[in-house]
Amino acid sequence: VSAPLEPVRREADHLRILDQRELPERLVHLRCRGVEEVAEAIRTLAVRGAPAIGIAAAYGVSLAADNAARAGEDVRSAARAASDLLETTRPTAVNLFYALKRMRRVLDDGGSDAEDLPRALRAEADAVLAEDLATGEAIARHGLSVFPESGEVSVLTHCNAGGLATGGWGTALAPIYAAHASGRRVAVFADETRPLLQGSRLTAWELHHAGIPVTVLVDGASASLLGRRRVDLVIVGADRIAANGDTANKIGTYAVALAAREAGIPFYVAAPISTFDLATARGADIPIEERGPEEVLAGRGAPGAAAYNPAFDVTPARLIAGWITERGVLRPPFPELAEQKAD
Amino acid sequence: VSAPLEPVRREADHLRILDQRELPERLVHLRCRGVEEVAEAIRTLAVRGAPAIGIAAAYGVSLAADNAARAGEDVRSAARAASDLLETTRPTAVNLFYALKRMRRVLDDGGSDAEDLPRALRAEADAVLAEDLATGEAIARHGLSVFPESGEVSVLTHCNAGGLATGGWGTALAPIYAAHASGRRVAVFADETRPLLQGSRLTAWELHHAGIPVTVLVDGASASLLGRRRVDLVIVGADRIAANGDTANKIGTYAVALAAREAGIPFYVAAPISTFDLATARGADIPIEERGPEEVLAGRGAPGAAAYNPAFDVTPARLIAGWITERGVLRPPFPELAEQKAD
Repeated sequence: VSAPLEPVRREADHLRILDQRELPERLVHLRCRGVEEVAEAIRTLAVRGAPAIGIAAAYGVSLAADNAARAGEDVRSAARAASDLLETTRPTAVNLFYALKRMRRVLDDGGSDAEDLPRALRAEADAVLAEDLATGEAIARHGLSVFPESGEVSVLTHCNAGGLATGGWGTALAPIYAAHASGRRVAVFADETRPLLQGSRLTAWELHHAGIPVTVLVDGASASLLGRRRVDLVIVGADRIAANGDTANKIGTYAVALAAREAGIPFYVAAPISTFDLATARGADIPIEERGPEEVLAGRGAPGAAAYNPAFDVTPARLIAGWITERGVLRPPFPELAEQKAD
Repeated sequence: VSAPLEPVRREADHLRILDQRELPERLVHLRCRGVEEVAEAIRTLAVRGAPAIGIAAAYGVSLAADNAARAGEDVRSAARAASDLLETTRPTAVNLFYALKRMRRVLDDGGSDAEDLPRALRAEADAVLAEDLATGEAIARHGLSVFPESGEVSVLTHCNAGGLATGGWGTALAPIYAAHASGRRVAVFADETRPLLQGSRLTAWELHHAGIPVTVLVDGASASLLGRRRVDLVIVGADRIAANGDTANKIGTYAVALAAREAGIPFYVAAPISTFDLATARGADIPIEERGPEEVLAGRGAPGAAAYNPAFDVTPARLIAGWITERGVLRPPFPELAEQKAD
């Protein structure tokens, strides 16, 4: 089965990125021919979602290596500079650092000479994408295990942890795609997710595109929706998961988790293992990106008002029923990840 | 001291309504010469906020009586028809029904003949406004009693329960105006309040206009702001308060209350006594207005998506530290209101 979407794909001489800033009005692809364009695409949210950022960053390094080889420049130092640049684009998404670490490992491998290096980097970036697609399928499979056994299922999600946010399957939306594909009736409530409206723009677009019924609500409405028990479960994505399970995700997630707990509705996080950052002990240690006030005030904000615009919040582990990963539904202290910790 | 704002004022031959749909870009006043225009102004949110709606409705009945008298038509039946029309405009705001009940009482008073009636109705509408202004000043005074004793105070609010929502002082914002006027340093965090952005458009506009520092945040960010204990207290308004204290207010209020409870930050409701509806036992009995999907999807919603758009939610009484009214800071079972109950 092919993935429902292709948000980031390498072409012969460029990286093709589905420009998510233009959705849902227009389906536009960027053609990034150099690492600067990839970094700009990440920084300006043309590509967003932690796994998709990681994939784009890996290809950004590969692209820089290819370009250096073509120009007869030093491939290794060009690729290293590309990795340095990409590291500065978004501070919270751990997948970015994970993908770049993989690329650096190839770079640091003395076995590759300058001629082999571009090919080895390209293979590694391809592997980051292929593994993400396999991960999405596995998350879908494990996610289905937390659905009610039969009947129509209603799921609330926040932001966009869908195909667009990954190699193509998504994390939070992957089990929904799988349920729909198996013929099960599934309906989704999507928080619009201010300030950038990833819910009403992206989640609603990709689910509607796939023929799955989707209802958008303002972020402030999800607490009362949960209070009225109009949904069976909540699934959200994650940008970084600390060793104790505290989970950073799009601003507004914490409020949804509090309301779900109050209503007795299970709240799940779906994320690849690469989102776990076992070197970070607690949520309080996760750096939270604060973005510019114009995102909040653009449109109709009162002139003269200030704005506070954190991009993420941290949901404490105690509010989370389970972490749906490619290795199953995990719970702290995540013994399945002991190997990664030692790594 | 005059009120900081004049959102609804009767002029010689019309009702002057500050058109809140045009804020913050333009300060425009509607001149409503008949009850149909007043009803339209209420229905389309040109005037909004439960007390301001009540004032506008009272003047709408008075205006209909004046017009009928001028045209030589039956004043009593014209005023009754006006009241019937106004009752259909907004289903949740109890102040609307309270104000119209007062006008009907004047209408039903056999003592007034057709000549006296317009004057009596005008006097009653003037009384509704004057009492609201006195109420605002009293709420300000009692509200100050829940502020920390000294130092700068930081208050979070949701939607707009300010001067614009009332005769001119506001409810949730009244203590803030009073604190500022007394020279105390006070800063406000205002939830933007989707879908209609009453926070970033109206609360931010009127506080900035009054010289009070205001910081806007998306609704999803207030839970983490509270979790980080960046505010001293929360004050919100109310659209209807049930006998047990369950409080209907703008959608998103319930999520703020849950987060405040979790952080141990006191959450207050500020509202005139007229907002209490002792005939409604519990929050579950309060009818919740559902508005059209276009308010949520306008702008950048994905084509084909549905929307769920309740205008209000209900915050259970157990999450509320106190109800700041013109008679003091009350708590259930509200013995101070026993007289009203018998009424």
